[in-house]
Amino acid sequence: METVPKLRELELRLSRLEEELHLFQRISRLMVREAPLSQELQSIVALLVEYLECDSCLIYLVDGAELVLCASNAAPQSAIGRVRLSMEEGLTGWVARNRRLVSISRDAFNDARFKSFSELEADTYEAFLSAPIIARNRVVGVLNVQHKLPHSYTGEEMELLTTVGEQIGCLLLLARLDRSALERTLSIEEMLSGGLLAASL
Amino acid sequence: METVPKLRELELRLSRLEEELHLFQRISRLMVREAPLSQELQSIVALLVEYLECDSCLIYLVDGAELVLCASNAAPQSAIGRVRLSMEEGLTGWVARNRRLVSISRDAFNDARFKSFSELEADTYEAFLSAPIIARNRVVGVLNVQHKLPHSYTGEEMELLTTVGEQIGCLLLLARLDRSALERTLSIEEMLSGGLLAASL
Repeated sequence: METVPKLRELELRLSRLEEELHLFQRISRLMVREAPLSQELQSIVALLVEYLECDSCLIYLVDGAELVLCASNAAPQSAIGRVRLSMEEGLTGWVARNRRLVSISRDAFNDARFKSFSELEADTYEAFLSAPIIARNRVVGVLNVQHKLPHSYTGEEMELLTTVGEQIGCLLLLARLDRSALERTLSIEEMLSGGLLAASL
Repeated sequence: METVPKLRELELRLSRLEEELHLFQRISRLMVREAPLSQELQSIVALLVEYLECDSCLIYLVDGAELVLCASNAAPQSAIGRVRLSMEEGLTGWVARNRRLVSISRDAFNDARFKSFSELEADTYEAFLSAPIIARNRVVGVLNVQHKLPHSYTGEEMELLTTVGEQIGCLLLLARLDRSALERTLSIEEMLSGGLLAASL
């Protein structure tokens, strides 16, 4: 009878889901704190590396027509804020332009879209998963995960990266809210009259 | 042998966790859209009612020294934006003032903190779970869930409501970002010089 292996499989899957939920809860907790953005991005990188057991995790943010490396577990500190990619090239640029997830399980460096991705060592890794960072319907960055060895990303991992990309987008917007906007009392009247609440009333 | 009941229990728990994860993903998806806030709040209420199988779900937002009902599955449309509670009374006011979750499994209406909670029918319900809505470290509202019959809220349900309260807080801040702020290109230089990214470099 196959009950016992099935049991073990379910237990594994359950603990995996619990970890994923915990990851989202920790990201959510980051969003209500008022830590510097760089710290928040680094915390998200650390959470993803732990959960996905990946060798590299990088967060690029859009700066004009370029993407700037803003957080990573793999790049040296000196690369943060300095490694820049054109939006026109590389897998990362492709993800930003097309606003689509890319998942490659092996030979990522041979992908036709790859091309002079950057000078980071991680660019010789086999497996590559990349999601756009989206804020209020605009691409504001790219979130990359890489494995040195071939790795088939699951649908769940893709869904996870998509959601984390959205959460980072919110974090970015929140970081841009200036203090004066935060100090203002949230006025319901204003929101009602501004159509924010009115639309469905 | 107890393997089969255990298997069933695990399967149930797994499907529950999958639903919870799905709930977070749907809330995350709401955050990147640009729908009117009222619609987004109503969508969250609908998701929570479905997941928690509660009889009532209400979102109050802070407006000066009051809390204003802004979304609900249970109150008539006419109550939205009109039912107001003082921050000084009721369980909802207590949650806002103390920034703490409240969980009551039965007789919620007899709680000493309850007191003239509001004129909503839901205020005769037995079970009550309430979490502060927090944005960048400030209480900006309260999220209430109620069951007509006694109901012991699990640690998971409490954790869920806490996280959804944080996510709603982010949604509120995002709704306050004016269009001009959104149109501005995200300038990394600006963020670096503004100390947002610089702090941990």
